[in-house]
Amino acid sequence: MVDYVVFGRGSFNQLEEIIDPQRKDDYPMVFLVDHHFENKGEHLLNRIPAKKNDKIIFADVYHEPKTTYVDSLADQLKDEFGMVSGIIGIGGGSTMDLAKAVSLMMNNPGSSADYQGWDLVKKPGVYKVGIPTLSGTGAEVSRTTVLTGPTRKLGMNSDFTPFNQIVLDPELTKDAPVNQRFYTGMDCYIHCIESLTGTYLNEFSKSYGEKALDLCRYIFLEKDNWDDECDDKLMMASYAGGMSIAYSQVGVAHAVSYGLSYLLGTKHGIGNCIVMNHIEEYYPEGVAEFKRMVDKNNIEIPEGICKGLSEDDFNKMIDVSLGMKPLWENALGNDWEKIMTREKLRELYGRL
Amino acid sequence: MVDYVVFGRGSFNQLEEIIDPQRKDDYPMVFLVDHHFENKGEHLLNRIPAKKNDKIIFADVYHEPKTTYVDSLADQLKDEFGMVSGIIGIGGGSTMDLAKAVSLMMNNPGSSADYQGWDLVKKPGVYKVGIPTLSGTGAEVSRTTVLTGPTRKLGMNSDFTPFNQIVLDPELTKDAPVNQRFYTGMDCYIHCIESLTGTYLNEFSKSYGEKALDLCRYIFLEKDNWDDECDDKLMMASYAGGMSIAYSQVGVAHAVSYGLSYLLGTKHGIGNCIVMNHIEEYYPEGVAEFKRMVDKNNIEIPEGICKGLSEDDFNKMIDVSLGMKPLWENALGNDWEKIMTREKLRELYGRL
Repeated sequence: MVDYVVFGRGSFNQLEEIIDPQRKDDYPMVFLVDHHFENKGEHLLNRIPAKKNDKIIFADVYHEPKTTYVDSLADQLKDEFGMVSGIIGIGGGSTMDLAKAVSLMMNNPGSSADYQGWDLVKKPGVYKVGIPTLSGTGAEVSRTTVLTGPTRKLGMNSDFTPFNQIVLDPELTKDAPVNQRFYTGMDCYIHCIESLTGTYLNEFSKSYGEKALDLCRYIFLEKDNWDDECDDKLMMASYAGGMSIAYSQVGVAHAVSYGLSYLLGTKHGIGNCIVMNHIEEYYPEGVAEFKRMVDKNNIEIPEGICKGLSEDDFNKMIDVSLGMKPLWENALGNDWEKIMTREKLRELYGRL
Repeated sequence: MVDYVVFGRGSFNQLEEIIDPQRKDDYPMVFLVDHHFENKGEHLLNRIPAKKNDKIIFADVYHEPKTTYVDSLADQLKDEFGMVSGIIGIGGGSTMDLAKAVSLMMNNPGSSADYQGWDLVKKPGVYKVGIPTLSGTGAEVSRTTVLTGPTRKLGMNSDFTPFNQIVLDPELTKDAPVNQRFYTGMDCYIHCIESLTGTYLNEFSKSYGEKALDLCRYIFLEKDNWDDECDDKLMMASYAGGMSIAYSQVGVAHAVSYGLSYLLGTKHGIGNCIVMNHIEEYYPEGVAEFKRMVDKNNIEIPEGICKGLSEDDFNKMIDVSLGMKPLWENALGNDWEKIMTREKLRELYGRL
């Protein structure tokens, strides 16, 4: 679990008070900030409590985090400072994952690619704080950090991965771009549909998943205009959705969208939406509701993104997707391989 | 936050695997077990993974935990072993609170009464595990431990108070006495009513409180018979209710019931029910729903428990109750003192 959680409008102002007791000797605090804020984030940047040799790094999250990028950030910090007091991630899901991964790599030898998997990380990272500026991924509470490595897209899933502290300030999500906010919110909604209809589930994950789903429905179907209440509730939906991952698993949309992101670099939130738009067969009610959310919020989901790909490309996506065995098993049961054949998946990718 | 949470039927069987890595030198693990299990808990006792010099102590929870009892348990363990590897509480809310408090007192000097209040505890306790066998109090996740001291009933509320690990195994609540299970479940329900209608609340606590309330309604109004699903859901309701305390506050029922427990030793769960039965004025819908739950579950709520008390006794209860300022303020607003006068509270206690 995350050790400390602060939730509240304006709680970002408590950051100095929160991190100062964690400073060690003269080692700096490193603020890893979504590059989106580099030019238009003055209101946020001015409030970062950086002191002395503290460093602000704008994280390139144009692509989802790669193991090579994690390694280079950690190496850069080791070269410059020897060690750091802590890493504070400020941004969306990619920035959260980067901050967690860099923190771990400050104290673990080798490359982050060596730790993609379950419980391979052997030492705690440096002190790490997550401050989301987009809600929906659940990366602020999860025990993983999804990374694209040389051979796979897989997280550093370990007891040492969760943040020591998260600061959930819904004011920070107020100015997120409308489309981005929707796609990221749908990451939460789609996760709930996949886990609640799946075969892996217990009451812990069900309770959290149901709450996240209720909140998403309220925000994206009942509300007519985006307001502070939506920011508050989507931040809690993201938190609850992230917590529900503990004892549940995602399903078809995630499994198919991993193929897209591996081959085409499609970002996670939009990739899930692109797939969700075409999988009525597996989630009839969920997909119908998703389409109502898309309509009500005037969002356009891209179509035809697989046009012109070679069979070789399709095969690569199919390989990546079918490799996500637990996701398919959760969605379709033990006999999933008989249901989701390569032909069937080829046909689905062709329609995206 | 609690560091590690395990949830699942049968997860108690993982206890050995969970605690063994926490053993330090030859210091024992101490299992603090609700005395209820001493004679009729063979099925549970046989599964406690005690080794070598580990010790099982049956906790006297006939009364709610007192600071004197906490101190004597901690002193006894220091005398016998010098130090312990950990304290594992197995029981209801009182046992949870005792385990947390004894763990803290193994590493903090003086009496637990010195630490009743907010953030007075200066050092982490020894490793502590909470394993509830009754659901509803939320003590398994809270950052306090309610103790009756020489001058007040107040918790050791601190960042060091939460458990390092909780094991939530709904199988353990299966054989709880029906009345006890109801009263403890109502602790959760009443907390939700008080916090959700109160003036202190944010979206974090609201989301958790709403989920706990939904679960309580399902269990106590929709279900016709108690079954495994009820045990699962009430354990989650307790967890969610406990989490919701973070940014909310209880109200009238708790404030009045503290007076009863201080003077008469009335236990928390039943005390809340006794009060809730008579406070339609403050929670009209909540009390009506509470009464439907009482009827549907064939529970008898004691009446007339204040009969024959002296005015001196009433004054003591009134003093204790009115001392709970934040509870009254949450329930009745800033002007609560004009609303809840001594006369009004005297009249209410007289009806209980």
